[in-house]
This record gives sequence, structure tokens and C-alpha cells, in this order.
Amino acid sequence: MARSPESTMSRSIGTVAMRWHGDSLELLDQRLLPTEEHWMTLEGASGVAQSIRDMVVRGAPAIGISAAYGVALAARHAGAGDWQAVIRQAIEVLAASRPTAVNLFWALQKMGAVFEACTDLDEAVAKLADAAVQIHQDDLAANLAMADHALSVMAPEAPMSVLTHCNTGALATGGYGTALGVIRRLHEESLLNRVYADETRPWLQGSRLTAWELARDGIPVTLNADGAAAAILAQKDVRWVVVGADRITANGDVANKIGTYSLAVLARYHGVRFMVVAPSSTVDMGMASGAGIPIEEREGTEVREIRGIPLAPTGVEVFNPVFDVTPASLIDAIVTEKGAVLNPDAESMKALFS
Amino acid sequence: MARSPESTMSRSIGTVAMRWHGDSLELLDQRLLPTEEHWMTLEGASGVAQSIRDMVVRGAPAIGISAAYGVALAARHAGAGDWQAVIRQAIEVLAASRPTAVNLFWALQKMGAVFEACTDLDEAVAKLADAAVQIHQDDLAANLAMADHALSVMAPEAPMSVLTHCNTGALATGGYGTALGVIRRLHEESLLNRVYADETRPWLQGSRLTAWELARDGIPVTLNADGAAAAILAQKDVRWVVVGADRITANGDVANKIGTYSLAVLARYHGVRFMVVAPSSTVDMGMASGAGIPIEEREGTEVREIRGIPLAPTGVEVFNPVFDVTPASLIDAIVTEKGAVLNPDAESMKALFS
Repeated sequence: MARSPESTMSRSIGTVAMRWHGDSLELLDQRLLPTEEHWMTLEGASGVAQSIRDMVVRGAPAIGISAAYGVALAARHAGAGDWQAVIRQAIEVLAASRPTAVNLFWALQKMGAVFEACTDLDEAVAKLADAAVQIHQDDLAANLAMADHALSVMAPEAPMSVLTHCNTGALATGGYGTALGVIRRLHEESLLNRVYADETRPWLQGSRLTAWELARDGIPVTLNADGAAAAILAQKDVRWVVVGADRITANGDVANKIGTYSLAVLARYHGVRFMVVAPSSTVDMGMASGAGIPIEEREGTEVREIRGIPLAPTGVEVFNPVFDVTPASLIDAIVTEKGAVLNPDAESMKALFS
Repeated sequence: MARSPESTMSRSIGTVAMRWHGDSLELLDQRLLPTEEHWMTLEGASGVAQSIRDMVVRGAPAIGISAAYGVALAARHAGAGDWQAVIRQAIEVLAASRPTAVNLFWALQKMGAVFEACTDLDEAVAKLADAAVQIHQDDLAANLAMADHALSVMAPEAPMSVLTHCNTGALATGGYGTALGVIRRLHEESLLNRVYADETRPWLQGSRLTAWELARDGIPVTLNADGAAAAILAQKDVRWVVVGADRITANGDVANKIGTYSLAVLARYHGVRFMVVAPSSTVDMGMASGAGIPIEEREGTEVREIRGIPLAPTGVEVFNPVFDVTPASLIDAIVTEKGAVLNPDAESMKALFS
């Protein structure tokens, strides 16, 4: 039986939101954090698909890994009938769970290729489980490589503080995290004084997830309202702002959670450096610049209410974009598992990514 | 019987949070906004003091005016006994309601001087009511004068949008508002496209009060998470950021609600101008610069919770300053009822305020 990757590693990778048991997958229900820590046990692909759909698990890498485990579970519990039809259907159901998640399709494509090469069920059970664990391992390895590259770029000479936004940690990935992985590494190397975590309105990923994850892992964290970030950069010992990315274009522009662009402007004004950490799958060399990125706007209720409690007059107009675009000119380094691009522009991006 | 100032004016001054009836004062309970509009009727000074203490009324000018009406009520209901002792005690009780509110002491000092000059109760009842109404009128007049000066500075040639922070409106003053009064005037003059209102975490004065007040008065408002302000300045037709002030120092530095400094940096980066609007009583020429302003930090629960609902892990450390300091170098204009100071510094401030 394949072991869960986190149990075989000596390095701490944080509180991963999934546990693989070979015949079942446990997912930490992130909708209930930070007030309740509830693990759901899933034994089939349809349950995993439902969990992705309902946001029990979130973060693009974590979604892809969960889906891979879902395919492995379909094989494990296929029974004596038409096992190939069962697995094929599982892949379809999982692919339909979050139609826009790039990592989901990438993981399912990989699992599909392994499945097509299998000639009997026993082989499929073993190979699909191994493949899912490998996808999980590869994500972890990529995050660890990002942290290596990031620390080379930072080359801190003494402990410092950093500021981050949203959640890019073990909860959002296969473990360790992207931007939060870099922060974790600073802590491991005794180079971190403190993480300032923006609460990240309106979804509060900073309060609900990042503060929870860091506090649990014993990494010193201070939570702040997003509007206090400028005062922190002016007063505290923050040397780097470290954030994730949802999409990076060919010229080094970065789309990320709303509020990221604000931090980039504030960091530049205060002489604080600004780093983006994301897997290379986030880099879209087919898009010339951030001007081409469509920015999704979500419902106003996310700003007008918290957990159903009205904070603003009913129906007042709200501007609620999910992402903003930070121009490459405000970014000191883009770090992926392939390496770092300093002072990104079209030329330096092309050198690493094409 | 003295009439309420707002009922004698032809110009709309917004939804004022207090109504004076000569023998009673009605206060809008701002703790219940925006979900409930409940007016409390107060017939004595102790009830007014309690309302100030419990934040039924907030905003320094509104607190001062309410206290003045409280003294007038004490005289009105003093009865046949030792009326002077009753009024003296009322002033004491009101002064103890919010020990750090400058406008409160200023208003009570004014009322005390009027009271000391009265020789019988009938005279005190009439003169104290007149004095309270006068304090209310003067605050309104100051706000209207600020709007005049602000529009001269802005000199907009076409309708534009503005962005504001916290609540500086009719609810926080005797009517019309300071920064929000300027925005009201732009709307009256058909020079306003739209107000973008920061929700203003952690207290949400933008959501709860500014959005409510503007929507009610028919002024086009769009609410946004504080982290979206940078995207708004980059994308929308905002020409000015307009905010209030809690204290202005001799060199033109401004302490105001946390998040204001962030907006000043963002405005400068985007070529958007930045205006501070406040009564001249806010100017502290005895303090050389913002470095001397003590910044109150409040309880972490204000960030960790909203209305008792936990948003973050229990006990996680929080940085929760009430104010930040915006350096004069980022401010294009400071506007008071005495006039405007452009590109404020020690010299230009001295010219107007000493």
C-alpha cells in the first residue's frame, strides 16, 4: 500500500489538508476553519469530486492532488465488474468538479495516461495509487525547490520579518506551501522574526487559514487588517513582502488575490522588496502582459455580509474583483521550482521559461 | 423654544444623527446601523452621557454637540429646587462620559460659561438651549465652509469620482460632514460621478455608516474591500482621495483612521490627489510633527472577530492600531473652515493657523 508522502519525510511540511491511506482519503474541511477541525473520510471518486466542488479543499495544487487520489480510490473500490468503465467515469466526474482549475486537468491527464497503459485491475490499483502519490510528492518537491531558490535570492544576513497576503501554505498545496513555504524555510533557518499576515478581505484567507496554519506550526505570526500593512512596512522590520500568484504573463506581470497590487506599491515606497512565489505551471508565456488577463468580479454579498450577517446596507453597489494585476516593474523576484527571475521583464522571463 | 438647526436650513445636510426638540433630544443609535434605524429619546443629561459612553453617538463633533444639548436638557428639567447644582452636576457627568474627546470639553466649557452668567432658571433654560443650538449651527457652518474651500482647491472641470475612508459624514458631525461634506457638495454641483467607500476594517465604518448615509441621501456610492483601493485608483476615474483627520501637527502631518496612510501612498503612485478635511480644532500647532503623536492600539478581538463570530484562531497575535500617520509630503491639501493649506509644511501651516 502506498504511504502518504508526508509520513515518509523527515522535514516538517506543515499541516497538510489531506491524508492518504491507500483505500481512503481524508480531507480537512477548510470551510470550517479556524473554529472547527473536521476531517472527512472519502472512499470514492464521487465524494472527492463533491469535496472539490464544495470547497472542502481549495488551492489549485491541493485540488489537483485530491483529484489524483480520487482516481486511485475509484480503482481500489472498482470491484469485479467493468473496472475500466468505472475508472473512466471517475475521471469524468472529477474533471467536472471545478471547470476552470488548471492543476485539476493536468493531474487527471497524468492519471488517465497511467490508467490507459494498465491491462488488469490489480495493475491499475497499484499504478494509479503510485501515480497519485507521485503527483503529491512532485508538488512537495517543487515547493521545497522554490524555497531553496527564494532563500538564495533573499540571502538574509540576519533574522527579519516578512509580510504576506492570502493563503499559499500547506493547506493550499501538497504541503509546505509556495510563498508560505519560503516563510517556513526562513523560520527553519532561524532567519524569521515574524510573519505579518493580511487578513485578506473579503474572503479572510489570511485570518482563517494562514494565521491558523502558522500558529499551529509554531511560526510567529501577527494578523493585521489589510489597511494596516502600510503602517507595518513603515514601522516594523519587514524586508520582503512574499505572495503567491494565480497567473504570470510573459512580461512578468502577476495576477494574484485582490490587495496584492496595493502591497507591491507600498513595498516599493518603503524600500521593501517584493517576491512572487508560484509553480512554473502558473506562468502563461502565451499571454504578453497583465492587460490581457480577464479579472473575475464576484458577488457584492461577499463584502456586504460576513457569514450571513449584514455589514452594509442591503443592495449597496460593491466593487469586488477577485484578483488584481501587479506590473512586473514593481516585482523584485519571481520564484518558481525552475529558478528565480530577478527584475522580471519579457527578456528575463523568456530566458527561464521558453 | 429653540428649533433644530436642520429644520431651518434650505440646503440638505444629510441624515443627521440627532434631533433637538427643546425638551428632549433624539439620537440615532449608530451601533445598530445599517440593519436597524432606531432613535432614542433622551430627556436628561445622564441619558445623554450614557449614550456618549455607549457609542450610540460617535464622531468628535457629534459628541460635543450632544453634550451641549445634554446641558440644555438639565436646565429644562431642573424643577423648583437648587437648579444651579443640577446643571453643574450635569456638566460633570457629561464631561466624564468620554474622557479623551477634545470637542466634548470644548462644548461643555462653552455651555458652562453661559450657565455661570445666568441669574435665574428661566434665563438659564432659554440661554442654554440657544447656546447648544448655536454650537450645532457653528459646526454645520464650519462644514459648509470647508466644502467651499475644498471645491475652490479641486476646481473640477468635469464630473469625477472620489475615494474616501472611514465615516466623516452627517452622522459624525452636526450635519453635512467634513470630508463627506466635500463629497456631498460635489454631488450638489453635479461634479460627482461616484464615491468609492473603503469598508474600513476593522470597525467597518465605511460599510456600516458611510455607505448607509450616502445611499440614503441618493449619492452614488460603491463599497469596496480596503485591499481593492489600489485597483480602483488604477482603473477608475478617481481624481481625489478625500479623508478626515483626528489630529494635524504643525508641519502638516495627519493622524487619521488606520488605512489612511496606505491610501496616501497609493494616491501619489497613481497621480491621484490627496485631501484632508477637518475643523481647525483638529490642528495641534503645539506638536511639531506626526512622530510625536501617540498611536493607540486596540484589542485584537476587533480583527479576530466580527460581531462575536470568530474569523481567526483564538488568541492569535494581532497588530491593531487605531490610527496611522500620513506625512505632509503625501498631502496635496489640508482644508479647514479657516481655509486651505496647499502642499502643507511648517511654513504654510503657520501662515494659516498661528
